[in-house]
Amino acid sequence: MGLFSTTNLRVRYAETDQMGIVYHSNYLIWFEVGRSELFRELDLPYTKFEEQGLGLAVVEASCRYRKPTHYDDNLTIFTEIEEMTSRKVTFSYRVFREEILLAEGKTIHVFINKEGRSTDVRNYSIWQQLQPVLEKQQAEI
Amino acid sequence: MGLFSTTNLRVRYAETDQMGIVYHSNYLIWFEVGRSELFRELDLPYTKFEEQGLGLAVVEASCRYRKPTHYDDNLTIFTEIEEMTSRKVTFSYRVFREEILLAEGKTIHVFINKEGRSTDVRNYSIWQQLQPVLEKQQAEI
Amino acid sequence: MGLFSTTNLRVRYAETDQMGIVYHSNYLIWFEVGRSELFRELDLPYTKFEEQGLGLAVVEASCRYRKPTHYDDNLTIFTEIEEMTSRKVTFSYRVFREEILLAEGKTIHVFINKEGRSTDVRNYSIWQQLQPVLEKQQAEI
Amino acid sequence: MGLFSTTNLRVRYAETDQMGIVYHSNYLIWFEVGRSELFRELDLPYTKFEEQGLGLAVVEASCRYRKPTHYDDNLTIFTEIEEMTSRKVTFSYRVFREEILLAEGKTIHVFINKEGRSTDVRNYSIWQQLQPVLEKQQAEI
Repeated sequence: MGLFSTTNLRVRYAETDQMGIVYHSNYLIWFEVGRSELFRELDLPYTKFEEQGLGLAVVEASCRYRKPTHYDDNLTIFTEIEEMTSRKVTFSYRVFREEILLAEGKTIHVFINKEGRSTDVRNYSIWQQLQPVLEKQQAEI
Repeated sequence: MGLFSTTNLRVRYAETDQMGIVYHSNYLIWFEVGRSELFRELDLPYTKFEEQGLGLAVVEASCRYRKPTHYDDNLTIFTEIEEMTSRKVTFSYRVFREEILLAEGKTIHVFINKEGRSTDVRNYSIWQQLQPVLEKQQAEI
Repeated sequence: MGLFSTTNLRVRYAETDQMGIVYHSNYLIWFEVGRSELFRELDLPYTKFEEQGLGLAVVEASCRYRKPTHYDDNLTIFTEIEEMTSRKVTFSYRVFREEILLAEGKTIHVFINKEGRSTDVRNYSIWQQLQPVLEKQQAEI
Repeated sequence: MGLFSTTNLRVRYAETDQMGIVYHSNYLIWFEVGRSELFRELDLPYTKFEEQGLGLAVVEASCRYRKPTHYDDNLTIFTEIEEMTSRKVTFSYRVFREEILLAEGKTIHVFINKEGRSTDVRNYSIWQQLQPVLEKQQAEI
């Protein structure tokens, strides 16, 4: 298993729809919350990437909805780095209420420069901090 | 090719993020706009389903982001029924700015009853209107 | 000072816009997070209202934006019941990053029944729990 | 009456909540849609402001909710410039379904420079296009 993180959040009323459950696009936002937390725990908050003119653009996202989530539910987002290179990162996510798996998803991202083009993070000073993470990631798989 | 519809929308400022492009979860909302429009054009607005205690729950959603979209872009959402049974519908979507393909996605839905369980739409009076659609859909593939 | 509550939240990337700061409508969602927390602390989670067929419809909302908030900011929402009767509740909110006041707002709500009409909460069993809250509120002002 | 514009939009499913009506923060987003349209009709799309390093930061927003709006409702947003100087603009909004007034609101904005500080738009070349608008606005009140 690769590097991972868990984070908790409570469902907001704004996130529900008239079906009485959470509107499905919100899960992608929760995935981002999980991803942010994982980077923060690796001491690589996403703000550090942006300070260097680096972005992490989403190129693919998917989610399987297994059970509905409701207003005020207390959720756990389990986020994991599934694959990582100096150009691309794949995250996987699982959303739980207690031990019940509610949804699972995946996002694929590429590092981009200020012009919005795919770039190699080895050209940036953040690489010094990212390299050990990447090596740890590859060792653990 | 199956039943399809096109709809236009303009990117809202609220839909952008600090990367200067549209935040990725919004595409799922645009897909819903496309799907709503397709049902409306089939004279089966989604409100008719809900009046009968029927819902169409998303069980899977995915999107590939090819090019970024920006505030004020004028987009065309091309929505198509890819597969349809009396229990399940698969839609595919393509998002264009003029002739440029920006993103493409898919959502899978099941019909659910008031209790939120998977149901067969043949048990509902809307079936009389939905059946010819389904047959047309199957004939055209 | 009336009944109040504080709650913390971290700014999500999804909440920013291309100006590089939080899009202004999100503050209303944070106010709702604060309000939910206040009710929960009073042992009156909003889900209890809805179980009885009661809603709390927003009739007015306003916000003054003093300083911008940014992605990953750790915010404190201070929520207070400003006025309360058996028909109407006014909440006020203040958003802080550490000791800095970033925004302040107000929302006014009326209790509504299942038909969406203004109603008196004294006609519902939740009144037994709400009455002491209301009395405490009025005593403290 | 000052300069104004009308724009139409259809309520998205994503905009509803479990009360079965539109969640209240979405009206602020619709106001932005109205404001964008008004600027576009004045041949001053907001993108032109941003190209010059100018922003229009919201300092105050408010809304009165008169009647609920529902999924699929076809709405008209009536947007008007209520006051305008070279530093500050006040917009007012009214949301209608056919002739029924559903909500009305107001937002106050200041022009800001790249550093996020309040600025005078007379220092920017866009002033040449904005000045006649401002004069027309002041003449019509």
